[in-house]
Amino acid sequence: MMENMKNRRTIRQYSVQDVPDDLLNELFEVASRASNTGNIQLYSVVVTRDKSRKEKMAPAHFNQPMVTGAPVVLTFCADANRFVKWASFRNADAGFDNFQTFMAAVIDSMLFAQTFCVAAEEKGLGICYLGTTTYNAAPIIEALSLPRLVVPVTAITVGYPAEPLPKQCERLPLDAIVHREQYNDYTKSSIDALYRDKESLEDNLRFVEENGKETLAQVFTDIRYTRKNNEYFSDEFLKVLKQQGFL
Amino acid sequence: MMENMKNRRTIRQYSVQDVPDDLLNELFEVASRASNTGNIQLYSVVVTRDKSRKEKMAPAHFNQPMVTGAPVVLTFCADANRFVKWASFRNADAGFDNFQTFMAAVIDSMLFAQTFCVAAEEKGLGICYLGTTTYNAAPIIEALSLPRLVVPVTAITVGYPAEPLPKQCERLPLDAIVHREQYNDYTKSSIDALYRDKESLEDNLRFVEENGKETLAQVFTDIRYTRKNNEYFSDEFLKVLKQQGFL
Repeated sequence: MMENMKNRRTIRQYSVQDVPDDLLNELFEVASRASNTGNIQLYSVVVTRDKSRKEKMAPAHFNQPMVTGAPVVLTFCADANRFVKWASFRNADAGFDNFQTFMAAVIDSMLFAQTFCVAAEEKGLGICYLGTTTYNAAPIIEALSLPRLVVPVTAITVGYPAEPLPKQCERLPLDAIVHREQYNDYTKSSIDALYRDKESLEDNLRFVEENGKETLAQVFTDIRYTRKNNEYFSDEFLKVLKQQGFL
Repeated sequence: MMENMKNRRTIRQYSVQDVPDDLLNELFEVASRASNTGNIQLYSVVVTRDKSRKEKMAPAHFNQPMVTGAPVVLTFCADANRFVKWASFRNADAGFDNFQTFMAAVIDSMLFAQTFCVAAEEKGLGICYLGTTTYNAAPIIEALSLPRLVVPVTAITVGYPAEPLPKQCERLPLDAIVHREQYNDYTKSSIDALYRDKESLEDNLRFVEENGKETLAQVFTDIRYTRKNNEYFSDEFLKVLKQQGFL
């Protein structure tokens, strides 16, 4: 299993083989064993198989082709609604309409989602996370009829991988992400050392050239994750948190 | 491996056996293969082994005994600082001081943390998540010298389980957390059915009685996760996000 985890890669193209409900349910069962806040389980997952509903969600995910190309899309939601409903039927007043509950629910959702993904990959499935979920939460809320105190946090596409498998992406060396006893802030020379391999990869060099940029960092800051977009989508997501009752 | 994942439980008491650095590093290596935002890896982890530093962090975690009782405490942080430093040394202007970047970094941190945990448990280790991390982020930031654009999201204690192992906790049935095609909101009768088993467990019945409450839900709303505390810790965490530059 450790070898599978080390060799994993994101899968964006899927074979025609369907993912049976029995298998999905087994994986949800495993995922529900993940840790969660006070055993309250502040999350829900919406399973999308229906083609027209995938098409309805696709624009929210910038029409990335795996949304309609995968047999299954799973949307993982921070969910305080179920707990609050339970409390309301049990003569209990839940003060869960706040940011701290949202954070706990995000954490619960992510533990559930990632445990699902590790188990799914162990079973031969491939997955791709959709970071667009927090960009365009409002249309996803509409497409999936999410009530107050439910916010989509992440989504994945799931299916059996199409051949050939994509290459495995690089990662920063462990020294870049692991700090001993306290945070050791980065200097020009430590950054140079930690990013050297990444910056000299052929794919990344081509990426810089194709985009007409001076450095790989500029590809990220000027094209993929611009200040303008980050600030726009920040405002949108904060509006969603207010609208759904968490702020 | 699926069986291990199904049978897992949170471990709060640890044997005297230490966790070697080699093993930790192997697990970090596996965890770093988890998906992340645009392969930017918006996370860091701080490893605490030093007794005095654990003692310094313990009050932030409400002095839960596993913080000083575990050989290792890991604090997982949303980290945009490394990327922004890299960009600054590469003539790139990173607009990463905003809430959307914080959300991406939280998601990245949680994928990394949970992949670590699944792999750690496969290697025979036990873990316990510390939900207190977002309650008292400010003193943790101080204890670990976290700079601007770095915020602790979660922490875990890690070690080999002490015998005997604790009981496995219950979970809600899958029908409570899985929605097909769209969110099916809960009614009095669906809540009654979904919570029946949980509410009739001997441990939970005793929990209600010992706390002098009418219902299990009241134990959560009146004692463990009160409105007053949730709102107080919401304000505190929002202050931390502002202080660290994400809001």
